[in-house]
Amino acid sequence: MPLESRDRSRILVNNNGRIQPAEEAVIPAMDHGFLYGDSVYETLRTYRGRPFLLERHLDRLWRSLDRISLSPPCGRSELRDQLRGTFEAYHEPDAGEPADLACRLVVTRGVGPIGLDVTLCVEPRFLIFAFAVRPLPESYLREGIAAVVSGVRRNHPSALDPGIKSGNFLNNILAFHDARDAGAQEAFLLSADGYVAEGTTSNIFVVERGLVRTPGAFGILDGITRAVVLEECRREGIPIEESRISAEQLLGVEEAFITSSVRGIVPVTRINGQVVGDGAVGLRTREILGLYDARIERECGD
Amino acid sequence: MPLESRDRSRILVNNNGRIQPAEEAVIPAMDHGFLYGDSVYETLRTYRGRPFLLERHLDRLWRSLDRISLSPPCGRSELRDQLRGTFEAYHEPDAGEPADLACRLVVTRGVGPIGLDVTLCVEPRFLIFAFAVRPLPESYLREGIAAVVSGVRRNHPSALDPGIKSGNFLNNILAFHDARDAGAQEAFLLSADGYVAEGTTSNIFVVERGLVRTPGAFGILDGITRAVVLEECRREGIPIEESRISAEQLLGVEEAFITSSVRGIVPVTRINGQVVGDGAVGLRTREILGLYDARIERECGD
Repeated sequence: MPLESRDRSRILVNNNGRIQPAEEAVIPAMDHGFLYGDSVYETLRTYRGRPFLLERHLDRLWRSLDRISLSPPCGRSELRDQLRGTFEAYHEPDAGEPADLACRLVVTRGVGPIGLDVTLCVEPRFLIFAFAVRPLPESYLREGIAAVVSGVRRNHPSALDPGIKSGNFLNNILAFHDARDAGAQEAFLLSADGYVAEGTTSNIFVVERGLVRTPGAFGILDGITRAVVLEECRREGIPIEESRISAEQLLGVEEAFITSSVRGIVPVTRINGQVVGDGAVGLRTREILGLYDARIERECGD
Repeated sequence: MPLESRDRSRILVNNNGRIQPAEEAVIPAMDHGFLYGDSVYETLRTYRGRPFLLERHLDRLWRSLDRISLSPPCGRSELRDQLRGTFEAYHEPDAGEPADLACRLVVTRGVGPIGLDVTLCVEPRFLIFAFAVRPLPESYLREGIAAVVSGVRRNHPSALDPGIKSGNFLNNILAFHDARDAGAQEAFLLSADGYVAEGTTSNIFVVERGLVRTPGAFGILDGITRAVVLEECRREGIPIEESRISAEQLLGVEEAFITSSVRGIVPVTRINGQVVGDGAVGLRTREILGLYDARIERECGD
């Protein structure tokens, strides 16, 4: 087994059709994704070697592209092929049991003159950053993670709709400082009007007396794992509600968990240093973790 | 005179110490300035070959760096030297009378693993994009430009302070669509609470019965040209006021102009298709244009 194939931090980049190690991948300094954060992206992963919910990610990517008037750099089926080719290139044939892979799929505005007229940028570019999924620390699922409510508010949809998955991520980065400073693993952002919006890279769910609640989809990222959790709850008859959650309510819930495409479902058992419920991963959360695993099995199993 | 030196669209890039044509300048695809818009910048220009208000731009760059916890890639005096060296390299010795130059000076987070923990990015990088200042179309100063009030609101300071000059520019880019669609040259953004904030790349001034008004400096870019206009008005005893301007008030003013470091002062004579005042460049605006020219002469003249 070559050493490289066992290096879990290795990243392979498909740089607009050319596959290369991340260390060698470069983009033009005049790319507007660099100058202005004028790019959109998706993050997705495989289970058992199969991309999970790929078509939904491509649907959302196309919606993000449309919302910032960015032309796709290639057709959807070509992008799908490029993605599969990148994942295949990541796995060397003699590397034994392959790890599951994740990727960040970026579409950037491309090169253009300095200035805000995007019609002068005529060659959008895609990049696929492929990397091995690192298993979550075992304690995350057994004991849950800690989160904090950040002092940084979520971008208002009238300024920059969080529903656009864009390369303008400073809002989230500044919020994540608060998590890091507190030794927590995620930071929650409140909306401009003071309600719980989402995590820096996740959606939020809470459980109150068995009812599963999550903020409504306006002004937050339309999370794909979020949607799957709601679907699976509906299918099983678990009561769900999309409604406003105040910061005070958040601190009084019985259970909480976050969802994201790479991490799946992760229980949250401490918020702002206080234990959530009795401090253990709750029953409803465990039930939903099981439903999510079953969904993965249905979609990616043999 | 070599052809290249007369090419007004030529851009020279000082790429972290290495000067190269823009077409050859690349950055690592893993740079967080590209992945997340995690960068800050300044734009400044020369008059008579001398950088105008350079120290103020460096002051503000250092403030922006501090506000996103980004370490300077080098000391201030080295950055000043790099800037001067880049401008010198732009002018070839046999190129005749040199044009005035502008630059976009970017400091980016640098390479790090995918994720929001900025402490893992340990090598910030600077880039200086130098280019010849294109003279404003003569009509801009004689007749003024057209602007529109965009439907896109300014980022709220609690989400992402517009006072940080960052590479998260999608808010402004989306607003500029409205200007382009209307055939206008600038778009004004309102703050979240509905007051006039600023242009996509400019600050806004209006004149009402001789009084020069501009939105207060909270929640907008702390414009350097804006500050100089206020200083020059004070020095001349021209009445000024920093106060809220509603969108309705904006449409009823006698004069309006925008300020920016590269364009200086540009009169605005149409807003949302309506003429401002009598449609001509106003007397107060002309007076302030003269004061600004005199300031340039004092700072950059012989």
